[in-house]
Amino acid sequence: MMNTLLLDCGSGGRASHRLIGEIFLRHFDNPVLRELDDAAKLELPHGRIAMSTDSYTVTPLFFPGGDIGSLAVHGTVNDVSMLGARPLFLTCAFILEEGLDMALLDRVAASMGAAARRAGVSIVSGDTKVVPRGMCDKLFVTTTGIGELLADPAPAGSRAKPGDAVLLSGAIGDHGLAVLGQRDSLSFLDGIKSDSAPLNAMVERLMLEVGDIHVLRDPTRGGLATTLNEIAGQSGVACEIDEESVPVHANVAAGCDILGLDPLYLANEGKLICIVPEKKAAAALRVMRESNYGTEATHVGEIIEPSLPHKSGQVILRTRIGGRRLLAMAEGAQLPRIC
Amino acid sequence: MMNTLLLDCGSGGRASHRLIGEIFLRHFDNPVLRELDDAAKLELPHGRIAMSTDSYTVTPLFFPGGDIGSLAVHGTVNDVSMLGARPLFLTCAFILEEGLDMALLDRVAASMGAAARRAGVSIVSGDTKVVPRGMCDKLFVTTTGIGELLADPAPAGSRAKPGDAVLLSGAIGDHGLAVLGQRDSLSFLDGIKSDSAPLNAMVERLMLEVGDIHVLRDPTRGGLATTLNEIAGQSGVACEIDEESVPVHANVAAGCDILGLDPLYLANEGKLICIVPEKKAAAALRVMRESNYGTEATHVGEIIEPSLPHKSGQVILRTRIGGRRLLAMAEGAQLPRIC
Repeated sequence: MMNTLLLDCGSGGRASHRLIGEIFLRHFDNPVLRELDDAAKLELPHGRIAMSTDSYTVTPLFFPGGDIGSLAVHGTVNDVSMLGARPLFLTCAFILEEGLDMALLDRVAASMGAAARRAGVSIVSGDTKVVPRGMCDKLFVTTTGIGELLADPAPAGSRAKPGDAVLLSGAIGDHGLAVLGQRDSLSFLDGIKSDSAPLNAMVERLMLEVGDIHVLRDPTRGGLATTLNEIAGQSGVACEIDEESVPVHANVAAGCDILGLDPLYLANEGKLICIVPEKKAAAALRVMRESNYGTEATHVGEIIEPSLPHKSGQVILRTRIGGRRLLAMAEGAQLPRIC
Repeated sequence: MMNTLLLDCGSGGRASHRLIGEIFLRHFDNPVLRELDDAAKLELPHGRIAMSTDSYTVTPLFFPGGDIGSLAVHGTVNDVSMLGARPLFLTCAFILEEGLDMALLDRVAASMGAAARRAGVSIVSGDTKVVPRGMCDKLFVTTTGIGELLADPAPAGSRAKPGDAVLLSGAIGDHGLAVLGQRDSLSFLDGIKSDSAPLNAMVERLMLEVGDIHVLRDPTRGGLATTLNEIAGQSGVACEIDEESVPVHANVAAGCDILGLDPLYLANEGKLICIVPEKKAAAALRVMRESNYGTEATHVGEIIEPSLPHKSGQVILRTRIGGRRLLAMAEGAQLPRIC
């Protein structure tokens, strides 16, 4: 194999075929992918499915706790899961810069393959484009996932109801700070690792063992505060959360203090918000705490009837010192290119 | 709406929501997309589906006969169709450069929406990432499509059989030259338009009215020659085609002569190869000629038993002057970034 990527590797000709065989087929191997047709032929148990797509442009490509490859698997597996679905198949489309170090591409593909196997999904089809040097930043990847819906009605952002409990699967802010620390070589952030992880096993247990899950949503870009605002807006409710009860690791809290960042707005890649009727909250928390990636799960707040002073779509934070303040949706990005 | 794209528009916060509402929801509007959940909830008639993904990095973004938006719809609709499937749903993921002209993004999204409506598919979920200036070339888009399989066994690259007829739905090379002409301002290529078009209606009629379709494949990157080599290799057969019978528009042939390009290796975005048992060839050709985008369909060759001097996986061209020569797979790209 050559050491650096050539434009020819995106041509559809022999050079493309070698790239696919030597890197992608080797790391993603499965019978569907091996057919190498224009599309993958798939068998799903039924036709009620969830489908989601995300492009990944994170920089740097490798960071403590993960890399763009595993992130691209976890992120899309999680988005499909948030409809209460069992993710089954992924596609991946690479946009690569001419001159890319092939060993780096091989490491990313190996990480994607391993992440897919751990999450129990197959990468069934793909695409590779190579653009001339300077036309993209090393490597972008877009994954799309599909999965079978496990319940009808499915969890949805519009289904939060007054009286529901708001549960969070663990501590927030690690992913955003881990990427920032690596990118800007901030040594005081050493030791913070991304939480990038697949949440489908936890979701499947919530759906099948607890049931009646109203909302599942992973607080990625925009963080917990923005995601709760989205849910409150979609459901036409208000939401109150306790600052004290939201878990934040000590090193993340310290890093945020130094940088003037708010962990409530930092991206997470392995956490979910679960909104359930209050009577289901204890069972849901137990399942979350028993799951991988959910040991720090906790009850963080409630959905409430919108009535003055709490308007529909608003999120209220009960602060540590006993006050209440509005937690607005982020306007823009605290940190760009974290996913 | 602001005039140029800000990094904040990829943040997941309010600026992202405005971008989605003002551009994407407006042009792609449908009930599934409007839910704005992490994934789209879809109902398919059954669970036997085709799924395909492609990234589009074509430059320039607008070219005679199309643009990156309509191309991203047609390309993926066609890839799903090539398994003999009826495409139903698309997702789209944008990677955008900070500072992008918003009017340009609006034109691309409008073109995507219109192309999806014409092809009868819905854009049900999406993603937007914004990278800092210089980190990508204006706009890349990745579409992923799913559709219901219409036959079992489905057409596949591995199903060509000796004796089968090789049919081509029309003239080749227009897309590759149209993009090149626009990019390099080659005035002698004026008048050549991309053939970018959705082929799903033609495929559906072939599947339902003719049946027993062995192979469908659209000769995009690498052109007719490379695609036939892939099929011959996957099926373990040889293939002979008549140079004389392969339609090439006069202006494309003239442009290729000047540039030293071979139309057999140029990309097409609205053509398909259909391989059927000889007894089905007349019926298939009739359906193709009656379809939009298929009026110039023609019989171009046959699948033959691999026996010396024709080895398995080889494609042989019967030349205009009566000779025979091997038509190899392209090694690399004649023209980069044409899709």
